[in-house]
Parts: sequence; structure tokens; C-alpha cells
Amino acid sequence: MAEIADSDIEGQGPLPPWHMGEVSFGPDRPLSLDSGGLLAPFTIAYNTYGTLDARRRNAVLICHALSGDQHVANRHPLTGRPGWWELMVGPGKPIDTERFFVICANVIGGCLGSTGPKEENPATGRPYGLDFPLITIRDMVRAQAMLLDHLGIEELMCVAGGSMGGMQVLQWAASYPARVYAALPIATAAKHSAQNIAFHEVGRQAIMADPDWRGGAYLLENTRPRKGLAVARMAAHITYLSEAALQRKFGRNLQNRAAFSFEFKPDFQVESYLHHQGQTFVERFDANSYLYITRAMDYFDLAADYDGLLANAFKGSRTRFCVVSFTSDWLFPTTESKRIVHALNATGANVSFVEFDSDKGHDAFLLHEPEMFETLRGFMNRIASERGVRESAR
Amino acid sequence: MAEIADSDIEGQGPLPPWHMGEVSFGPDRPLSLDSGGLLAPFTIAYNTYGTLDARRRNAVLICHALSGDQHVANRHPLTGRPGWWELMVGPGKPIDTERFFVICANVIGGCLGSTGPKEENPATGRPYGLDFPLITIRDMVRAQAMLLDHLGIEELMCVAGGSMGGMQVLQWAASYPARVYAALPIATAAKHSAQNIAFHEVGRQAIMADPDWRGGAYLLENTRPRKGLAVARMAAHITYLSEAALQRKFGRNLQNRAAFSFEFKPDFQVESYLHHQGQTFVERFDANSYLYITRAMDYFDLAADYDGLLANAFKGSRTRFCVVSFTSDWLFPTTESKRIVHALNATGANVSFVEFDSDKGHDAFLLHEPEMFETLRGFMNRIASERGVRESAR
Repeated sequence: MAEIADSDIEGQGPLPPWHMGEVSFGPDRPLSLDSGGLLAPFTIAYNTYGTLDARRRNAVLICHALSGDQHVANRHPLTGRPGWWELMVGPGKPIDTERFFVICANVIGGCLGSTGPKEENPATGRPYGLDFPLITIRDMVRAQAMLLDHLGIEELMCVAGGSMGGMQVLQWAASYPARVYAALPIATAAKHSAQNIAFHEVGRQAIMADPDWRGGAYLLENTRPRKGLAVARMAAHITYLSEAALQRKFGRNLQNRAAFSFEFKPDFQVESYLHHQGQTFVERFDANSYLYITRAMDYFDLAADYDGLLANAFKGSRTRFCVVSFTSDWLFPTTESKRIVHALNATGANVSFVEFDSDKGHDAFLLHEPEMFETLRGFMNRIASERGVRESAR
Repeated sequence: MAEIADSDIEGQGPLPPWHMGEVSFGPDRPLSLDSGGLLAPFTIAYNTYGTLDARRRNAVLICHALSGDQHVANRHPLTGRPGWWELMVGPGKPIDTERFFVICANVIGGCLGSTGPKEENPATGRPYGLDFPLITIRDMVRAQAMLLDHLGIEELMCVAGGSMGGMQVLQWAASYPARVYAALPIATAAKHSAQNIAFHEVGRQAIMADPDWRGGAYLLENTRPRKGLAVARMAAHITYLSEAALQRKFGRNLQNRAAFSFEFKPDFQVESYLHHQGQTFVERFDANSYLYITRAMDYFDLAADYDGLLANAFKGSRTRFCVVSFTSDWLFPTTESKRIVHALNATGANVSFVEFDSDKGHDAFLLHEPEMFETLRGFMNRIASERGVRESAR
């Protein structure tokens, strides 16, 4: 997902009080992986916002996207930038931290504190690198369920997330139906498409083509595949925006010049913008994590675990679903959201579906979309009221 | 543009007799460049098919796309593969080599015989590399006009091409209106969009990130930026196909396996396909040429040379235009073709416009699209008859 421009989210009101947590599971409590192995020991780093109520009925789990992390609604400790979903999560926001207890965990395979390829492999005392096992969306969710057990939260009032976060939402609803009162999958799909896989493979090849990647062992050799990761990020970034958004933001405007340079410099603003996206990304993200997490998304095909019938994934579900898409999202287009909705309807689930009119592309879910905020505020208030969660003190 | 699957074009009938030509212009006949410099000496490599009639009225110029070349309708001497437009050009084809004299030249900046960055710089005796001047679409067309002068062809019955070829068609009609009886711009635009520029910049960065690129001097050091060029090609290739075409061809099918490898291998068919596209491309294409030609496309904005008004580019034009687009082409979408049509209508030009229904994406213009063939056959026959070009002997 894209960086959010400061102008989009500054001055949106006070930040919520928050807590940085970390839980480690020892060799006696391994994480079972879809690849067949076990991961042990492992750590999950997470943030919480707000207070769990006495009846433990107001917990909301936020699932982050490919390049996201647990810093949803607080200044990012590495980058100093705002949290990635401050527009949605905070005091008085649609996901109201004065009313709900919000949890967000860095995914397994990530690089912001949860166990991933850059952490130490206990078998060797060195960073895992490519010895880290491949993980899946289901593995990420399984680890989150262990975190919730640790926190003493049996049932989530809501699981919410966009893009890869939405995949986790769907997986939660399928794997743990009794633990999910409501599910909010945004700008997502029940499977990764051929085009999605193709773009990810380009990114992975760019990283692995960088000689500083060193077969994945760059940390041992004190290098970083910066150029390869930047190229991967640039390619991905284009897919997060619509053609219309690129046209509106940049068009063919030149960057600090009146005429073409007739050199291979970034003449165009859109080129400078992409370079910036690439450069800032390599400062905060681990290249091997990028490989592992993109692969987890590629492997995602929820129906495949249910005899190829997506409806079976939600059979008998009592979860309230609100499925959200955006008109100009060509990475996770509305057709994919409709497939989810059709499957939910086929099994008689409780589902509402909203497609928002936006020209911002896939990243719309991270940006200022007032109509979406109002709709999701309504959804959150309705389920909170059904659950008897007290109103905000405001 | 993509490789054409053999199955798409084999067995389409006999190949036309053809002629490989080359013309060199000495220091006394330099090519004026938009960057302000002169290119001299320079060579244009070209192929011809069919026979120029006595009145010199049946000449058709084909302009090739980014990764194309002059081998339109003959076995490619390097790859052994069919010509890139055998479906359209040949005996009895819509552009009928038994009736028309067809010319196609490798663009300036290219790597198949016309002067480009891999050729010798007479000032140093070594390959140009990045000392080659940046070129534009107008420079390419200016060089083609010199070729036609050399061939003694004053007026073209038709200029035709898709994608970057279509840009050249538009430039021909604008720069040399009296020399272009009819123009056939296919799947193209009068300017490169922000999204198009962004994808090209990703490709260039992938090439320049490859240490074997050696600042453009890889030929001197006997290396090739193979990995970088392959990544560039893979990224571009995705943009040539539609999401629907990728889904139809590959979906989530695995390559020679029944289950995920849980390794970073190309598990999916779409990954293997992209790898193949990358690998075959580096065998036949020069990485620096890729930089120069993509840049020429990025710089293309026909209206910019006419006070920002595209209609002015075609003012008073007597050329017959047939503008063609495809429904699923998201790289050069129909909206861009419509902009051309609006400009042509605004200046009272003779224009017809056809959008073909196809799920094949941008590459549809290279593929088996019977409706397109029939329409273009009709267009070619009409203009030939207007020009009094004799019917085919068939």
C-alpha cells in the first residue's frame, strides 16, 4: 500500500493512547504452518488502542496489508510518520478507540517485531534469511488467534482490514467463525489473480536479481538489496493507484524543469514520485519479508481449502459481513468483492456490500473517503449496539 | 509487445517475397534531432515486401512498436520465429503484399541494424552506449522520411502501426501531411500517460540497477544487464495483456506440479510464462535501446508541438484516418483513441473510428482478431481503389 501524504491525515484530531506489546511463544507452543512445518519459538509484536471492556465484547482486530505494520494509529517509531489508518481508527473515528479495544499485530513473516526472515534462527544463531519457512495467510491468522488467546479475548466484535488485511479478515471468518461477530473485508479478494501474481513475481525477481540480495543472506554480509527492493516497490506502487489518480496528481508535469533534459534523469513528476516511494520503502522494510509476504498473498485461495467452493468457507456462519470495494481499484476490482458477496449470499450469511465511487484506485481504502467513513461508522455502531458495547463517553 | 504464440500465426498461408535493405547517410546528410543535435553518419535497416508499382502509388509504411523491428512478415533472422505481423501483412492479407509495396524500417535508436546505442560511435570507435543522443518519435519519423526519399517514394498510400507504431503514424500525418494519403493508428495515443511513463521508468530502473549494465558501457566490458532487462520485460509484458486474458490463459494453474512448492520457485504458470518472456527478450534486444526507445515514447505528446491543441496537429489534413482501439486495452485505452478522433473531427479531417471487442488487452493488435482483419481489409481496399492501385492478381 502507498504512503499516505501528510496533508491527507494531519490535523484529524488527537491520537489515541496506545500500548506496544510483544508476546513470545516458546518451543512448547509452536505455530503450525500450512507448509507442514512448525515455527517455534516465535514472537508477535502488536499495538493496542483503547480499553477492553469488562465483558470483553468490544475488541476489534485490524489486519494490515503487504507493506503495513502494527502502527495503525500512532506515529511510526521508525519513520516518524502518521499511522497508516489514522483516518479510520482513533478517538471519534469510525473505529472509535474511545469505545472499542483495537488490536493490530505485525504479521508472521513481517519485519516490525514479529518473527520473520530477518530474525534470528535459533538453530543457527543467525538471521533466518531463506531458511525461514514459507507462510500463508492462514498461518498469519493462526498466529493472531494465539495472540488473542494470550490476551484472553475469545470473541472479536469485528475483524477489519484492506487488501492483504482483507484476505486475513476472510480467513478469520472461515477458520474461526465463532470468534468473529462481524467482518469488514475491504478492497480485497478471496484469491489472488493471475495478474496479481504476475506483478508480485516481477517484484520478487527484481529483488533476487540484485547481487546485494546474496541469495537472501544479505544481513550476514552486511549488504541490502536496496535497488532491487526499490524497483519492486515502484512497480507495486503503480498498481495501488488508478490511471485517473496518476493523471490528476502528475499528468505529464515535469519535475523542477521547463523542458525535457534529454538525459535519463527523472524528468517527469511521476518518476520522481516513484523514486521517492522506492527510496523511503527500503529504509523501513526488509527485502526478504517482501518476498515471503507477497508469496503468502499469491498462495491465497480461500475456496481451495473448501473443495473449490467459496460458499463452503462460510457455511453456517453467523458473522455479519460488510464487504467494501472501490470503483477504480483495478488490483482488487469490484468483481472480486462481488464473488465474495455471492458466496456469502449462497450460504445465507448476513452480508452487506458497498462499492464506493472513487478515482483513487486500490489505495482509496487508506485515503480520505468521507462516504466510506460514514458507512463504516454506521456499521461499527450497529454491531456495537447489538453487542451492548457502551457508547463513547464523548 | 508480446511474443506471438506460434499457434496463433502458423499455417496462415505463404510468406511474401521480401528484401532486406540498408541505407547509410553520411556526414553530409545528418539527422536533425529534437534534442538539438545532429546524428551523422547513420544507417537505417529496413525490409520491403511486394513491388512498387510504376506510378509509385501503392507504398505502405509499417511502423513497429517498442520491442518490434523491421521483420514484419518474414522469419526473424535472429530468433527463427514468424514475423510480428504476419497475420496482417502478406499475400492475400489485409495489407496485401501482392498488391502493395510494404516497407518497414527499424527505428533510429533500435538494435536491429538501424543506428542506435549499440552501434559504433565514429567519434570514439566504440559503441555509443549512453553517448548516443536521446531520440524522439519525431526523430524516428524524420529518419523514415529520409529513407522514403532514398527509395524515391514521395507519397505513402498508407502509414500503419500499433502502440509506438501508432505514435509514429500520428507523427507522420502531422509532420508530412502531403506525403500520407491514409493513416492507420492502432491501439495508441497522442501522448504517453502518467501511468505509461511510470511503468517505463520501472523498467529503466530495473536495467540501470543491474551492475552488469555498467553505466551503459556493458558492451565494452563484455557483460549484459540480462537480469535487469528481463525484469523490465516482465513488468512491461503484464501491461500488454488484460486481466481477463491472463485469467483465461493461466488463472491460478500450477506449472508442472500438483501442489505449492513452498519455495521461491515459479509455482504458477503465469510466473513461468513471464520468466520465458524475460529470457527470450534478452536474447534479441539491446538493453540501452530499451532505455532510449521507452524514453522516446515517454516524451511523445503530439499536441505539445501545436500549442497544446491536438487538433492543430492535423489542421487542413487531407489524410484518411482509421483509428482503432480494443475494449480491454488498458495501456492505450479507447479513451486515448477517442481523443485523437475528437481532434481529427474538430479540424474536419476524414476519420473513421473502430473499437473492437476483445479480451486480449493491448496485444490484441498483434493477434488473431478476425473482425479487425475484415475492417482493415475494407479500409485498405477502399484507399487502394481511390488511388487506382490495381487489384491483386489472385
